[in-house]
Amino acid sequence: MTSKSEPAYPLLESLRSPDELRDFETPKLEELAAELRTFIIESVTHTGGHLGAGLGVVELTLALYSEFEFNEHDKLIWDVGHQCYPHKLLTGRLERFSTLRQAGGISGFPDPKESPYDTVKTGHGGTSISTAMGFALAWRELGKDCQRKAVAVIGDGSLQEGNAYEALNHAGTYDDANLVVVLNDNNMSISPSVGAMSHYLSKVRSSTWVNRRLRTIQRAVRRIPRIGDGVDDVLHRWYHSIQGIIPHHTLGIIFEELGFFYYGPIDGHDVESLRQAFRATRWMRRPVLIHAVTKKGLGYQDDVPETTCYHAAPPSKAITGDAVSAYPDQGGPSFTSAFADQVIAMAERDPRVIVLTAAMLDGTGLVKVRKRFPERCLDTGMAEQHAVALASGMALAGQRPICAIYSTFLQRAYDQVFQEVALQRAPVMFCLDRGGLVGADGATHNGIFDIAYLRCLPNFTLMAPRDTGELVRMMDLAHELDGPSAIRFPRGSGVHPDSQLPATPLAVGKAERLADGNDGCLLAYGTMTYVALEVRRRILAATGMELSVVNARFAKPLDADMIGSELRRQPIVFTMEDHSVAGGFGSAVNEMAATMSGTGELASVEIFALPDRFVDHGTQVEQLIETELDVDSITRRVQLSLGRLTPTKPLRVIGEGSLAVTPRQAGAERS
Amino acid sequence: MTSKSEPAYPLLESLRSPDELRDFETPKLEELAAELRTFIIESVTHTGGHLGAGLGVVELTLALYSEFEFNEHDKLIWDVGHQCYPHKLLTGRLERFSTLRQAGGISGFPDPKESPYDTVKTGHGGTSISTAMGFALAWRELGKDCQRKAVAVIGDGSLQEGNAYEALNHAGTYDDANLVVVLNDNNMSISPSVGAMSHYLSKVRSSTWVNRRLRTIQRAVRRIPRIGDGVDDVLHRWYHSIQGIIPHHTLGIIFEELGFFYYGPIDGHDVESLRQAFRATRWMRRPVLIHAVTKKGLGYQDDVPETTCYHAAPPSKAITGDAVSAYPDQGGPSFTSAFADQVIAMAERDPRVIVLTAAMLDGTGLVKVRKRFPERCLDTGMAEQHAVALASGMALAGQRPICAIYSTFLQRAYDQVFQEVALQRAPVMFCLDRGGLVGADGATHNGIFDIAYLRCLPNFTLMAPRDTGELVRMMDLAHELDGPSAIRFPRGSGVHPDSQLPATPLAVGKAERLADGNDGCLLAYGTMTYVALEVRRRILAATGMELSVVNARFAKPLDADMIGSELRRQPIVFTMEDHSVAGGFGSAVNEMAATMSGTGELASVEIFALPDRFVDHGTQVEQLIETELDVDSITRRVQLSLGRLTPTKPLRVIGEGSLAVTPRQAGAERS
Repeated sequence: MTSKSEPAYPLLESLRSPDELRDFETPKLEELAAELRTFIIESVTHTGGHLGAGLGVVELTLALYSEFEFNEHDKLIWDVGHQCYPHKLLTGRLERFSTLRQAGGISGFPDPKESPYDTVKTGHGGTSISTAMGFALAWRELGKDCQRKAVAVIGDGSLQEGNAYEALNHAGTYDDANLVVVLNDNNMSISPSVGAMSHYLSKVRSSTWVNRRLRTIQRAVRRIPRIGDGVDDVLHRWYHSIQGIIPHHTLGIIFEELGFFYYGPIDGHDVESLRQAFRATRWMRRPVLIHAVTKKGLGYQDDVPETTCYHAAPPSKAITGDAVSAYPDQGGPSFTSAFADQVIAMAERDPRVIVLTAAMLDGTGLVKVRKRFPERCLDTGMAEQHAVALASGMALAGQRPICAIYSTFLQRAYDQVFQEVALQRAPVMFCLDRGGLVGADGATHNGIFDIAYLRCLPNFTLMAPRDTGELVRMMDLAHELDGPSAIRFPRGSGVHPDSQLPATPLAVGKAERLADGNDGCLLAYGTMTYVALEVRRRILAATGMELSVVNARFAKPLDADMIGSELRRQPIVFTMEDHSVAGGFGSAVNEMAATMSGTGELASVEIFALPDRFVDHGTQVEQLIETELDVDSITRRVQLSLGRLTPTKPLRVIGEGSLAVTPRQAGAERS
Repeated sequence: MTSKSEPAYPLLESLRSPDELRDFETPKLEELAAELRTFIIESVTHTGGHLGAGLGVVELTLALYSEFEFNEHDKLIWDVGHQCYPHKLLTGRLERFSTLRQAGGISGFPDPKESPYDTVKTGHGGTSISTAMGFALAWRELGKDCQRKAVAVIGDGSLQEGNAYEALNHAGTYDDANLVVVLNDNNMSISPSVGAMSHYLSKVRSSTWVNRRLRTIQRAVRRIPRIGDGVDDVLHRWYHSIQGIIPHHTLGIIFEELGFFYYGPIDGHDVESLRQAFRATRWMRRPVLIHAVTKKGLGYQDDVPETTCYHAAPPSKAITGDAVSAYPDQGGPSFTSAFADQVIAMAERDPRVIVLTAAMLDGTGLVKVRKRFPERCLDTGMAEQHAVALASGMALAGQRPICAIYSTFLQRAYDQVFQEVALQRAPVMFCLDRGGLVGADGATHNGIFDIAYLRCLPNFTLMAPRDTGELVRMMDLAHELDGPSAIRFPRGSGVHPDSQLPATPLAVGKAERLADGNDGCLLAYGTMTYVALEVRRRILAATGMELSVVNARFAKPLDADMIGSELRRQPIVFTMEDHSVAGGFGSAVNEMAATMSGTGELASVEIFALPDRFVDHGTQVEQLIETELDVDSITRRVQLSLGRLTPTKPLRVIGEGSLAVTPRQAGAERS
């Protein structure tokens, strides 16, 4: 992208350190802003990534770096790190930017491993003010330079999170905490923002609102005896004086009441205004909130209405290559889409069905549900805790709520899942999209802990479908339960509907045996079922050993009969899941085996699950290979354990990267 | 307590249904209030329980029942159920009130199993507005009578929880949700409330604040040209007119800005004012917030300053009997107190040490730390999410934060534990008091999921001490780690310091073998170690079989050497923990065993842990017996598994209820 003779981005390419930005005059920063914007659009439409958020904060990022001394003196914390692209480009990641979100490349979120300028790794929103306050209070206590500033940049979407409020509420009690909160207000979280705070901000944003206040005052003053008419000439002077009697500032009153010094609203694309705001408040020792109004995706297709399509651009085929056609994207419908279609079908059949999400209408596929049933598709905004407790109330009042929340984001509502749902035995159905490894979003977004954190809660039924057809049947089953349930399914597509295994009856705690054999059992959870079938086929071809394949369907309750029988009759049982090893599905099988000790000889159990570490970004395929959960690795590991690996006779592999095949493909295979 | 000839509480005792309260005139309600107050003080000082919260809402409860039609028409949801004593007395629990918080008796929190008037079981705060809103929205959608009201009563302490804000923020966008939020504002959570919202409420509460506003306006008006002096006579009329131009109401502006109709503040002990407030807002269809100012513990030792002692009164000895001297209260210092002393010692040695809690200064023992180090003992209020994210920031800035949060309440901050702590590998030390069964508080407060939900998170070190001496050493060890750790310890006291096992070196992932034997292994986590020693002694005495006893110390990382060696050399290994079976310590041992399959014959593993259901209130001893984790039950279960139970030769038991003895006692035992 760089050419030595004619640099395409002269300022950007010649920048050696963000420290230099402090010597830039505003016009030069504006030039740089234009370069950054062009670069990001060029690069991200090619690599894929969160386009809109970065474009919205180009000027803001430059203004921050021109007025603060990151990273040695001040600290910068990006709430929901996907706003960090301009920041990354200014802090040494220009050359590697084409590797964005690819395995071994740079992360789409801040990552301290990449640069000291990335203070924390953030992908879940609403925590930045707390973290920044931690720095500010620590500096105070450790006696560090009290002029250091901890700066949190938080979107109005993240401000819906309870954590953000808790932090504002606490910070506001300090009159000596060097905390700067920059509210990046674009009236969008991932979907357009909802909630009263959002209405409030839009009121504050709108200059007509200020004018309306002025007119209201005008009318009120006219009603005051002894003044009457003819006050217009004094009104403007009076307006300034009355600002002192209207509690604090009329604008930003909530923030002022919470103890912050409020500055704004200002144009978040006006570098000079931003710099002025930072300079004007730099000397203050009390917490400051600077309200910058920005436009998400500014510069990219400005004529297209602001919608969720800005949030993340899909990568171009050229980069991902063949990988997109391999497991788990096998060309069938996505689980997300099958889920949404089934919600519509259920809502049509049962008026008690209502579906909730937390700022993820698009990601969870619910956009089409909302079109069909606007009243029965509720977006609470980024407020998972509220969404879950709300669903509990609805369930107790007689509705049948479905909570569509990503596996990783449900962590935010864990205590409500415990108290409001499990403890009340409320019939809430959780549909956990992005269960397992999620690809480019990496460690913050992988949904690999849900079995562990849900399985310990009494009253829950936990399921995972092998394919989209089973997802539909599991939702029907969950709908009939009188207690809570959670169905996890992965990002991406399953097998084609016509290559899915045939539907078999589904009952709580009943597994499905798909193939028989006596040399061991492959006990799979969710989409690992198709991987298991392929592993079986390969082992059979290579060694003549026959493994049984069981689709467990339930992590809770386990099928004591079928799994118990496998444990008793097989020499070894291999459990397979795309979830952390600790407390996951395999762990549950082991626990069951422990209760059977004393009933005779049992199979040993080998767990194929994710290792106990965070898994970084890459394609899902690359992540599976890296964690040895792809077909090749599992085949090799199974063979090793079976003790019959014949290294002299290498297995014929059905093409590198093909991590699962459908039974039809498996059957149709030649030779 | 009742006498047929002279009823001590004539109104209370003659009440057959709370429906009758709607026919009571206010003076009669006031009489009943006096009866309720006396009854609660008499009863709770006897049985123990949350005294202050109930006394604060006597009038409020009566006013609610006199104006609403619970439970058939309207719904009442108590946030943090410990305010519910007057409610329980009015809804059929008068006779059984002396069984409060005792095994088989009534719960200290609302419980739908007891009465249909108890809408939800609540012990963790901040969720009531969400749940109530769930009812309101469900009624709307299901086409039920739109005049039904869902009423949430929430304390100002709970209003610090992010969930409460999320709910207000969402509810405020509805102009047709039949939601009534009653803010029970006593300026106390469990400790005095902190946070800017609390300051704000106290400003609103204070009439002097209103007057100060008036004077400010007065001065401002004098500055207005053409008005000048002599405006005093019009000022009061003007004040009323200006209320229209000061954004919405000056009072309650935050709630108004969030979209609620705000009514208050009113005297929460004035029945008539309360009724008037409910009547005045009953017809509104938009969300209403009624701000009632109450005094926690009103009527009980009114001359004693309001402190945390009001929160829960200890039970009198007469009720608890001998149980208090049995395990886990063995007369030594409490874990809570040992923890606090160690925090002080650590803070004295290392200026980087800072300790945080979320409204639990008293319960976590930190009151004395705050006295000694006021600047380094931080109470965030009821805001666990913020507390954890704040601690992360502090750790990344170079401090060594200790988070003192009950095991059950850490659930509220699970996602911050994941992202802000585990993912950043931030050296935050969590000290989880009330790990295990907690006794009278029951199912909402038992800390029995923490191993499961923490063990799956990479980078964590998990420990549990056998006694207070080991707690101190574990905190020293955690202090030296460069990543996060969590130490769980139970409510109550361990063994006496001079009867504790001697200190042995402590290193990460290293267990401690306390007794040897080849007939099996008792592998204990935490205080179960002393139970294991006693079980060993009894088995030896009864059967001559010798079991080894290992104090595991770490649930993560497990001691692969020592536990591995036990798994290889023993016929059976019994794991022991006071935690849910799913994903707990025993599950971890099983997972380790699974990785060892193929290395030869292994011991079978039997898990002694809590069953997969919620455990209700009772003493801790009763809870242990009920879940078969007391010494008697475990001895019996071990014998059964060893296959050598000799029913003809019953074991001599060292006194019923004595669930563990110290090694000294065990050694000194006669015959």
